[in-house]
Amino acid sequence: MLAKDNWKVYTYGLENAEELEKIKNVQITTLEEAIKPVEFVVSGIPFTSNGVYVNSPFSKKKITVNEVIKQANGKCFIAGGIDQKIRDKSNQENVKIIDILKREEFTILNTISTAEGAIQIAMEETSRTLHGSKILILGFGRIGKILAKMLSGIGAKVYCEARKNEDFAWIKAYGYELIQLNKIKNSLHQFDVIINTIPSLILTKEYLKKINMECIIIDVASLPGGVDKEFAKQIGIRVISALSLPGKVAPVTSAEIIKETIYNILEEMKN
Amino acid sequence: MLAKDNWKVYTYGLENAEELEKIKNVQITTLEEAIKPVEFVVSGIPFTSNGVYVNSPFSKKKITVNEVIKQANGKCFIAGGIDQKIRDKSNQENVKIIDILKREEFTILNTISTAEGAIQIAMEETSRTLHGSKILILGFGRIGKILAKMLSGIGAKVYCEARKNEDFAWIKAYGYELIQLNKIKNSLHQFDVIINTIPSLILTKEYLKKINMECIIIDVASLPGGVDKEFAKQIGIRVISALSLPGKVAPVTSAEIIKETIYNILEEMKN
Amino acid sequence: MLAKDNWKVYTYGLENAEELEKIKNVQITTLEEAIKPVEFVVSGIPFTSNGVYVNSPFSKKKITVNEVIKQANGKCFIAGGIDQKIRDKSNQENVKIIDILKREEFTILNTISTAEGAIQIAMEETSRTLHGSKILILGFGRIGKILAKMLSGIGAKVYCEARKNEDFAWIKAYGYELIQLNKIKNSLHQFDVIINTIPSLILTKEYLKKINMECIIIDVASLPGGVDKEFAKQIGIRVISALSLPGKVAPVTSAEIIKETIYNILEEMKN
Amino acid sequence: MLAKDNWKVYTYGLENAEELEKIKNVQITTLEEAIKPVEFVVSGIPFTSNGVYVNSPFSKKKITVNEVIKQANGKCFIAGGIDQKIRDKSNQENVKIIDILKREEFTILNTISTAEGAIQIAMEETSRTLHGSKILILGFGRIGKILAKMLSGIGAKVYCEARKNEDFAWIKAYGYELIQLNKIKNSLHQFDVIINTIPSLILTKEYLKKINMECIIIDVASLPGGVDKEFAKQIGIRVISALSLPGKVAPVTSAEIIKETIYNILEEMKN
Repeated sequence: MLAKDNWKVYTYGLENAEELEKIKNVQITTLEEAIKPVEFVVSGIPFTSNGVYVNSPFSKKKITVNEVIKQANGKCFIAGGIDQKIRDKSNQENVKIIDILKREEFTILNTISTAEGAIQIAMEETSRTLHGSKILILGFGRIGKILAKMLSGIGAKVYCEARKNEDFAWIKAYGYELIQLNKIKNSLHQFDVIINTIPSLILTKEYLKKINMECIIIDVASLPGGVDKEFAKQIGIRVISALSLPGKVAPVTSAEIIKETIYNILEEMKN
Repeated sequence: MLAKDNWKVYTYGLENAEELEKIKNVQITTLEEAIKPVEFVVSGIPFTSNGVYVNSPFSKKKITVNEVIKQANGKCFIAGGIDQKIRDKSNQENVKIIDILKREEFTILNTISTAEGAIQIAMEETSRTLHGSKILILGFGRIGKILAKMLSGIGAKVYCEARKNEDFAWIKAYGYELIQLNKIKNSLHQFDVIINTIPSLILTKEYLKKINMECIIIDVASLPGGVDKEFAKQIGIRVISALSLPGKVAPVTSAEIIKETIYNILEEMKN
Repeated sequence: MLAKDNWKVYTYGLENAEELEKIKNVQITTLEEAIKPVEFVVSGIPFTSNGVYVNSPFSKKKITVNEVIKQANGKCFIAGGIDQKIRDKSNQENVKIIDILKREEFTILNTISTAEGAIQIAMEETSRTLHGSKILILGFGRIGKILAKMLSGIGAKVYCEARKNEDFAWIKAYGYELIQLNKIKNSLHQFDVIINTIPSLILTKEYLKKINMECIIIDVASLPGGVDKEFAKQIGIRVISALSLPGKVAPVTSAEIIKETIYNILEEMKN
Repeated sequence: MLAKDNWKVYTYGLENAEELEKIKNVQITTLEEAIKPVEFVVSGIPFTSNGVYVNSPFSKKKITVNEVIKQANGKCFIAGGIDQKIRDKSNQENVKIIDILKREEFTILNTISTAEGAIQIAMEETSRTLHGSKILILGFGRIGKILAKMLSGIGAKVYCEARKNEDFAWIKAYGYELIQLNKIKNSLHQFDVIINTIPSLILTKEYLKKINMECIIIDVASLPGGVDKEFAKQIGIRVISALSLPGKVAPVTSAEIIKETIYNILEEMKN
């Protein structure tokens, strides 16, 4: 995409992505030669899973975090999920680190993909239409807001759980049904689908017992998620853990979002 | 569902649907014993595929149309897709025939499932979010209207093709983009998804050549559909024939719609 | 507007619309000189109120229907609300009559203005926000459909009354609350606003008694409307007759709709 | 409303609101007698306009801030727009002050009324339908968000101006058109209505010159607002200052919001 926009792109560690060879403006080369001529170095999201090696699913090489940071001396380095240790090292090497996962616009645009992915799963896993179904969304943060809008847009009956007076007001303003967490127990039986977005245990044994056996739970919160999955399994309630949806259900859109965020970063650095 | 609503239900030809045995109010019996005590006889949609045998996927028996109609003498008989020959026979046997496929409310409610099924397929088959995608709907009949509403509800950019000034006005009133069929050629390249609802050849060779190679076409129109599928394959454009979506993607909702339609029929016969 | 689109426009009977003098392409002249050079003659909506004189609010002259039709010999004549007597006369004079009020697209586009006008009145006449108010729409024809969409779009709780199974299905598909006319009595007390679109007496004494005293009724149906206005007044319920809304609340949009309809007519006559 | 909910209500300074006399649970009395038996004292929004006298439009008496605060000793006191000087005084008198204007849920619910009021004004002041009109909203805070939702719900073409990447993402997620402030100049000519929500000068001379003469500007931002009103007047562009809309267009809803906020406060004080 960057090459198509007429940037000169140097790559390293993508040798298995064979279609790259045919693209104009793309140069496949060594780490050193790739970084030397550029101003910006872009790597994966997440950058590394173990702190030692760079995530490089399109390469058989083992690329270490240390060698990348060292080569990036004096450059701006953009990747996702960069911990304090790597930041410290980057400071030493005079590398300007930008963690894309901390960019608000990236997170918001990604929630669109997450919400749509959760809706796709709900469509696939239920034997009813979402239109007309009663769907409870746990949590009214970014994902909860977009999910509510989309689900209500295809005709589901949307119930939003929240805990703050401020969120109650927004839920009313947007026209969804409000369910306060402390009164949720008595209404749990009515839902066809429950989507959890809260990254802490919310659907405990006590709550799971109240849920309709036909209901499915989709948990999009990061691990360990918000559902007592073991107990749910025990009593026969289906729980689907849906993580990293953007890359799975809409990889092209994900790439576009990353590209747009990079452009925002470039724009800001010019000013 | 009928049994749950406290109707007394007699069944024949469903012996492979084992869960029926355990349901209160359901009696599994012979054809004769099943029909004798009842006022209404309900059969499949479609009732028969070849004019000779009744569709009975949950039975190993061969049940003939003739024996069913004969037994139904004096009763009201509800099924789907009943041709003139069976109607004539029914008249002779004094059977009051009601073709559920001719009921407007049944058709409308079914289009919700069809539309949602088409959206599910579009989500599964594309590598972008529908949100933000440009989607063309060919035909502004029942399915076209519901599709437009749902797709726009999840944030797609919806373009509706139509040919009548009257439809142009509704499309404007509902806030979609209008594309007139005679001007469609020059705008076909921009779409990410095209959904056809028109049951006659509309995407000819000439039009297919204008379509973006990344675009997918979903054809929900009844056979032979509206796309020159052979040519599309030849030039590498993906076409997905999506038929009988309601039963596939939302069987429970489909059954509920049939039930509601039956209740409407009962209500009307009382008056 | 036509002159701005570069048509040559001749006018007669608009001498009080002074701004016309300054517009390029507009010629103010006599009836005879105005009609002679043109292919299309456009007059008012309605064309005449009494069958004798043409409606001409921007003129002090008395213009008769007869002289206009006579002059229009051999031309195409577009106006609104043309009765059989005038049609017969036109046939004699070889005038091709087109009644714009019979054009479906004109009617649909006009309902947008009517619906928006009714919403404006509801906003002005109530001391609550429409957002969150319970609003009943009587009739699910063109105006009912657009009203439901718009009111639900600004966050009102929309209830639609209908009488046909087919309409019930559309109401469900679009996600509004359904109220069947024969069950309406017990739910009438809950509404903040009732908008009637049915041109026959529907809110009788019996029904009016059930309505909340704070409720206002807006009647957009053509006279005599659907409300027993005398009885409503007697018991203190506010009824607002809202007729000819498009011209009142959005005259420019109304003119644009007429222009677009004329263009559609021109287009059709070419083919 | 509080009396209807079965609270015992004592009033002072409302003697011109004659209907109060007839309401059960309401006692009209002196300041001292009104405050002595209660736990909560509720006054106006704003509490005072000049720091000396309490706002009391339903009374001919002059009530001083000082006497009210003094009487409220040991009580909880709820009103709007309370400045630091009054807070200090309240601390001395052991009065627990709650400024309702600082409650987030109050502000959000009020923006619904503000947005609806702005829409009503736009409907009244334009000669087109909002449906189909191009409307620019300046500022994407609370009011901007609700306005965009409502206007798009009745079919307007909504353009949102914003300045932060984060807001750009939300605008995209919600499906509105984005206009960045630094690129706004070249697109200003196309709008039928501009609604400003930003409380600082944004529509300067330079920008106003670019605006279409038919366009109307509605300024809902608190004084001095965001428009160079003098220059606008000079060049003939209509600007409508729309302040305190909730109380004007929907006083009953406003009262309900205040009541709900008070109940939230009571709930929180119990915990």
